[in-house]
Amino acid sequence: MRIFYSETHRRHFPQGELNGGELVTPFERPSRVEYVLARLKERGLTDINAPDAPDMAAIRALCDPGYLDFLETAWDDWVAEGFRGEIIAASFPVRRMQMGRPPRNIDGKVGYYCLAAETAITNGTWEAALSSAASAQSATRAVIAGEKAAFALCRPPGHHATADMYGGYCFLNNAALAAEQLRASGAGKVAVLDIDFHHGNGTQDIFYDRGDVFFASLHGAPEDAFPYFLGYADETGTGDGDGATANFPMAPGTPYSEWSQALDQAIARIRAHGAEALVVSLGVDAYKDDPISFFKLDSPDFTDAGRRIATLGLPTVFCMEGGYAIEAVGINTVNVLEGFEGA
Amino acid sequence: MRIFYSETHRRHFPQGELNGGELVTPFERPSRVEYVLARLKERGLTDINAPDAPDMAAIRALCDPGYLDFLETAWDDWVAEGFRGEIIAASFPVRRMQMGRPPRNIDGKVGYYCLAAETAITNGTWEAALSSAASAQSATRAVIAGEKAAFALCRPPGHHATADMYGGYCFLNNAALAAEQLRASGAGKVAVLDIDFHHGNGTQDIFYDRGDVFFASLHGAPEDAFPYFLGYADETGTGDGDGATANFPMAPGTPYSEWSQALDQAIARIRAHGAEALVVSLGVDAYKDDPISFFKLDSPDFTDAGRRIATLGLPTVFCMEGGYAIEAVGINTVNVLEGFEGA
Ligand SMILES: [Zn+2]
Ligand SMILES: [Zn+2]
Repeated sequence: MRIFYSETHRRHFPQGELNGGELVTPFERPSRVEYVLARLKERGLTDINAPDAPDMAAIRALCDPGYLDFLETAWDDWVAEGFRGEIIAASFPVRRMQMGRPPRNIDGKVGYYCLAAETAITNGTWEAALSSAASAQSATRAVIAGEKAAFALCRPPGHHATADMYGGYCFLNNAALAAEQLRASGAGKVAVLDIDFHHGNGTQDIFYDRGDVFFASLHGAPEDAFPYFLGYADETGTGDGDGATANFPMAPGTPYSEWSQALDQAIARIRAHGAEALVVSLGVDAYKDDPISFFKLDSPDFTDAGRRIATLGLPTVFCMEGGYAIEAVGINTVNVLEGFEGA
Repeated sequence: MRIFYSETHRRHFPQGELNGGELVTPFERPSRVEYVLARLKERGLTDINAPDAPDMAAIRALCDPGYLDFLETAWDDWVAEGFRGEIIAASFPVRRMQMGRPPRNIDGKVGYYCLAAETAITNGTWEAALSSAASAQSATRAVIAGEKAAFALCRPPGHHATADMYGGYCFLNNAALAAEQLRASGAGKVAVLDIDFHHGNGTQDIFYDRGDVFFASLHGAPEDAFPYFLGYADETGTGDGDGATANFPMAPGTPYSEWSQALDQAIARIRAHGAEALVVSLGVDAYKDDPISFFKLDSPDFTDAGRRIATLGLPTVFCMEGGYAIEAVGINTVNVLEGFEGA
C-alpha cells in the first residue's frame, strides 16, 4: 500500500491544550506520527512517500475564503495584537448571536472561525495543515491512478473541521478533500466512513445536503462525547442529501461486539448507496486505553475492522484522524491497514 | 442614596482567565468592589446595606431551568468528573450544530451553557451570583418603596448573561431582574440603559422581543470588541419588541464628546418610549485607562454622564457591571452616582 506523509506536520506543535480547566500538553502531538511510522516499517509497509505540493484550488473550492485567509494570517495578527500565548479561542457566536459577521479584531475572529477552544493555533499550523491536506490529496491521486488503496498519514487530522471552522485538533478536512477529489475524477458516488471515536462533525456538515457523498460515522454519543453538538442518529441529511448521512452514536463502554455490528450496518448502508470509491477517516481512539475516549476495542479488533471494510471492494483512501494512546496508535492503525490488505 | 452589597461576592474568585492564549489573573476580581466601597465611604455615601435573601421565584421566572440547575451543580459535577482546574468551557454549539440539546457530560454541558471561555466557574460562583442578584433585587425594592434611586454594588456583574448562558464574567442578569421587578411593581414601561463599555448582549437577548422593556446600549463596536457577536446598530428588536432595542456601537478611541452624544440619543429614545422607571447597567470600563477596553472617557466625564441620566427624572436602579482599571473604578462609579444625585 502506498503511504503519504509529510515531515511538515511538525510545524504544528502547540504547547497547551485546554482540558479540564487547565492548559495541558496536547493529546494530539507530533510523536503520534512517529509511532505510526515505526510500526509501518516494522510491518514492511515501506512505500512511504512525501506528498506533492497541496492542490490549493481544491482546498479553495472546499473551504470558505474568509476561513482560509484567517488560517493563513492568524498567527501574525495575534502576535501583532500583543498576545503572548498560543492562539486559543475565547468568544463564540452561539445561539441567538450573529453567525454571519466575522469580527475585525483577531480575538473575535478566532472565535468566529472556531468550534472548540481546546485546539491552539501556533506559528506553523497553517503550513502543517496544508501538508496534511497534501498527503490526503496525493494518496487520493494514487488511488485514482489505479491503486487499490492508499494511506495518508495526515497530521493534523481533519474530520472535525468544517468549511469554515477549526477545532478538535483539525483545520482542513482531509477526508472531505479526498472525497471531492474522487468525485472530480469520475466516481459518481463516494462514501466517507468515519471510524474515529469522535463524530466527524466537519465531514457531515460539509456533505449534509449532498446525495453524491454518503457519510457514515461510528462514535461516542454526543450526549457524552466531544464534539457534543452533532452526531445524533436522527441527523440523516437534508435536501439532496436526505438519507445520505448515517450516524451510529454509542454509549460509554461499548465493546467491539457491539461496535462491529454498527460497522456492518454502516458498510451495508454504503453498499446500498452505490458508492464507487471510499474514504476512511481512520482514527484509532476507539481503543480501550485511549485517554480521551470510552470505547473498548482491543488491538486485534482493528485488524478485523479493516477486514470488514475491505468487503466493500472499493478503491479506498485512508486518512489518519485521531488516536491518543500513543504507544498503541501505530499498532492499531497498521492493524486496520493490514486487515484491509489481507482480506 | 441607598446602596446594597453582599460580602458573599468573595466566594467567586477564579484564579485564571483565558486571555490571549494564557491563563491570567482575572480582570474581574474581588478587589474591584473594595475600591468602590472605599470611594463611597470617602464621599459620604454610607447608607450601605446587606441585601435580603435572593428572590428565587423571580430568578426562576427569568432564567432557563436547565441553566439554573447547571449553575448550582456544575462545580460538584466537574470535580466528580476528575477535572483539576477551574471550570472553563471548551466546546460550543456554534453554527449548524445542535443548539437545543444540552449534553449529559459536564464538559459538554459547560459549553452548552456558556458563550465565552474567559469566564471560569469555581466552587462558590453560584452563591456569589445569587448574592449579586439579591443586591439588585433589594435595590429595586427600595426604589419601588419610594427612593428616587438606589445602587446595587453587584459582583459578579450580569449584563452578558442571557437566560441560559454565562460568559463575560456574568452569570445572572441583575439588570434584567431589576427591570422585571419594576414591571411587576406596576411600571408599565421600563428602560435599561447600559453604559458599560461592552455590549449588554444578555440584557438585549432577554428583552429582544418585548415592547415593555426598552434596551439601549453604548459600547465598543462588535467588529472590534467583546462580545463580538451582538450589538450591531441594526439590531432593533423583533415582534412586540420591534424598535425597543437601540444600540450605539462606537469605534476604538471614541472620546467623551462623541460618547455623550450617543448617551443623549439613548436618553431621548428612552424618553420617547415612555419609560416609567430606569435600570442603569453601570460599567465604568469606558474609562481611558481600562485595560480591556478602548474608549477615552476621563473621570469627570462619568459625573457628567450621571447628570445627563438624571434628566430623565425616573426612579432609577443602578446595577454595577464592569470596570477594570482597578484604582479608578471607585472614583468613576461614584462619580456617576454623584452626578445623578447632584443634578
Ligand atoms: Zn477522535
Ligand atoms: Zn464591560
